[in-house]
Amino acid sequence: MKKYRIPELNKDIGKRVYEYINTLTKPVGSLGRLEELVIQLAEMKNENFPSVTKPGVLVFAADHGITAEGVSAYPQAVTEQMVRNFLSGGAAINVFSRQIDAMLEIIDIGVTTDIEHTSLVNKKIRYGTANFSQEDAMSREEAEAAIEVGYSQALEMVKRGVQCLILGEMGIGNTTASSAVLAVLSNKDVNSLVGHGTGISSEQYLHKVQVIKQALRQRDPNPDDPIDVLAKVGGLEIAGMTGAMLAAAENRIPVLVDGFICTTAALIAQAISKQVVDYMIVTHQSVEPGHEAAITLLGKKPILNLGLRLGEGTGAAIAFPIVQSATLMLKEMATFSSAGISEKE
Amino acid sequence: MKKYRIPELNKDIGKRVYEYINTLTKPVGSLGRLEELVIQLAEMKNENFPSVTKPGVLVFAADHGITAEGVSAYPQAVTEQMVRNFLSGGAAINVFSRQIDAMLEIIDIGVTTDIEHTSLVNKKIRYGTANFSQEDAMSREEAEAAIEVGYSQALEMVKRGVQCLILGEMGIGNTTASSAVLAVLSNKDVNSLVGHGTGISSEQYLHKVQVIKQALRQRDPNPDDPIDVLAKVGGLEIAGMTGAMLAAAENRIPVLVDGFICTTAALIAQAISKQVVDYMIVTHQSVEPGHEAAITLLGKKPILNLGLRLGEGTGAAIAFPIVQSATLMLKEMATFSSAGISEKE
Repeated sequence: MKKYRIPELNKDIGKRVYEYINTLTKPVGSLGRLEELVIQLAEMKNENFPSVTKPGVLVFAADHGITAEGVSAYPQAVTEQMVRNFLSGGAAINVFSRQIDAMLEIIDIGVTTDIEHTSLVNKKIRYGTANFSQEDAMSREEAEAAIEVGYSQALEMVKRGVQCLILGEMGIGNTTASSAVLAVLSNKDVNSLVGHGTGISSEQYLHKVQVIKQALRQRDPNPDDPIDVLAKVGGLEIAGMTGAMLAAAENRIPVLVDGFICTTAALIAQAISKQVVDYMIVTHQSVEPGHEAAITLLGKKPILNLGLRLGEGTGAAIAFPIVQSATLMLKEMATFSSAGISEKE
Repeated sequence: MKKYRIPELNKDIGKRVYEYINTLTKPVGSLGRLEELVIQLAEMKNENFPSVTKPGVLVFAADHGITAEGVSAYPQAVTEQMVRNFLSGGAAINVFSRQIDAMLEIIDIGVTTDIEHTSLVNKKIRYGTANFSQEDAMSREEAEAAIEVGYSQALEMVKRGVQCLILGEMGIGNTTASSAVLAVLSNKDVNSLVGHGTGISSEQYLHKVQVIKQALRQRDPNPDDPIDVLAKVGGLEIAGMTGAMLAAAENRIPVLVDGFICTTAALIAQAISKQVVDYMIVTHQSVEPGHEAAITLLGKKPILNLGLRLGEGTGAAIAFPIVQSATLMLKEMATFSSAGISEKE
């Protein structure tokens, strides 16, 4: 397995920023989570006044053979249709990317059909995963190649100057794959992790749980080998996000982690290289029940709790302005001495 | 007492927007709170595609005679110093107002000193309130005049085209006044409502509770008469925000309610004209313990919970981009039919 060189956080800068924040014209600690966020960003970026603009958004799209088992509310064709929607600018992630003036890139890492479009990055590893209730989702080599695609795409965005990375995904069936991955990595009961995805019925929900349980017995992924887990029950877009996170961390670029699927990719990245987690900010608490378990395993605290369950990176994009507020507070506020204001009595 | 004519929400538009949201290219309900927010905005603004830009921020500044009792962490002079900081652009609310491209206005509604500055709106009602542990904070007429100042200032901003109003305040001692007002309006024990404000010690905290309890016994405000409550134990900036909320509601302009002081002003507004609450969105849950009680009395659910306790309207400004995301989702997303995407199976 490839080795990643992830730099340590600069805790000294964190301390300096903490002390500087206490000189800004506001009661000490009164901007709560914003103060914590900008300290973390400074430690990540090794900068006294970290910036998160411009943000970059990478959306990885892929299909899942497991949809043949009837685990999803939408037909598999919707993955391709939504990719076309991304390319014509009409999806939620397009709207929120425009709002935050982000660089946005759509990557076909494994859609079942060929899509021709000048703006689409074609890095297809295979035409969707195999149905993992019958066989491994993909080979070990394919899983590693998908990680490498994500890694390269993130690296390219970093070279183009993005200061913060948002990762999103599109793949009908990917809550099923993510639930399977999470069950292996968390050693928790599948029932407690599976949710209604994009909106299945209670009957379909029970079926989904059974499909995952049976597949896990048959595939028997090794919890100590993240590539094995990805290959046996994972997804190509999940692997892509994992690789992107590793590239961001190597380059001291903060990753804004989105919902359930993205957090599952983060857990795979953590299993590959523990320090990658230092560069992650979990942006929101999704409705999907497995998300809380996944966030806990990462050891993070989400910024928002708005009942989101869309994916595509939308929750992270919605949270971006708050992260930006934290950086602007540090950079633009006056200090007690510069503003000539009396200190606490 | 002046009568306010607040229009009813247009629930029919709310229903139409709800149905339209369900045609957008995302699983039904998957943008959670954002969907609720834009439905509320449509009902408030009587528009199919409500917009919240440009936002306007009004910051009311005033002093409190109760500071003579040693209830605050900072000296009274800080009110004036912070007003000067607002005017030179170095305070937190300046930073966040710039971030969201808001129109910002600072109103002296009762600072103890005279401040000359071309950008300051001088609407001083009196040089700070009286010490309400000794006498009424202000007269009934002054309370009504302060409400009228806020009303006129908001009206002027509405005329200048703002589509959404953020209200903030600066006034050393105003958590003490707000706790007193809230104790009267909520009929709850003072102990459960008082917090550490901008950062007092445990000893000062006990003293603050005693000061408020004693003052409430002596002033004995009538809980059924909001003007009496404001006059006896309130504050000029609180009254200003109350008036601004009433003007916004009359003009179908959404009000983004900030923290504890602002929510107390909202309760006074509610007591004056119940329907004003229809035009309020509570933006965050502050650390100040009384805030939760105040939000519950308003019947609202905060958007953020980031451990903020700064005031100035900062929490509302930080939450603004999320409210804007909700409006952009509605306005810019493609529908299933326009994007040619398959519906749920």
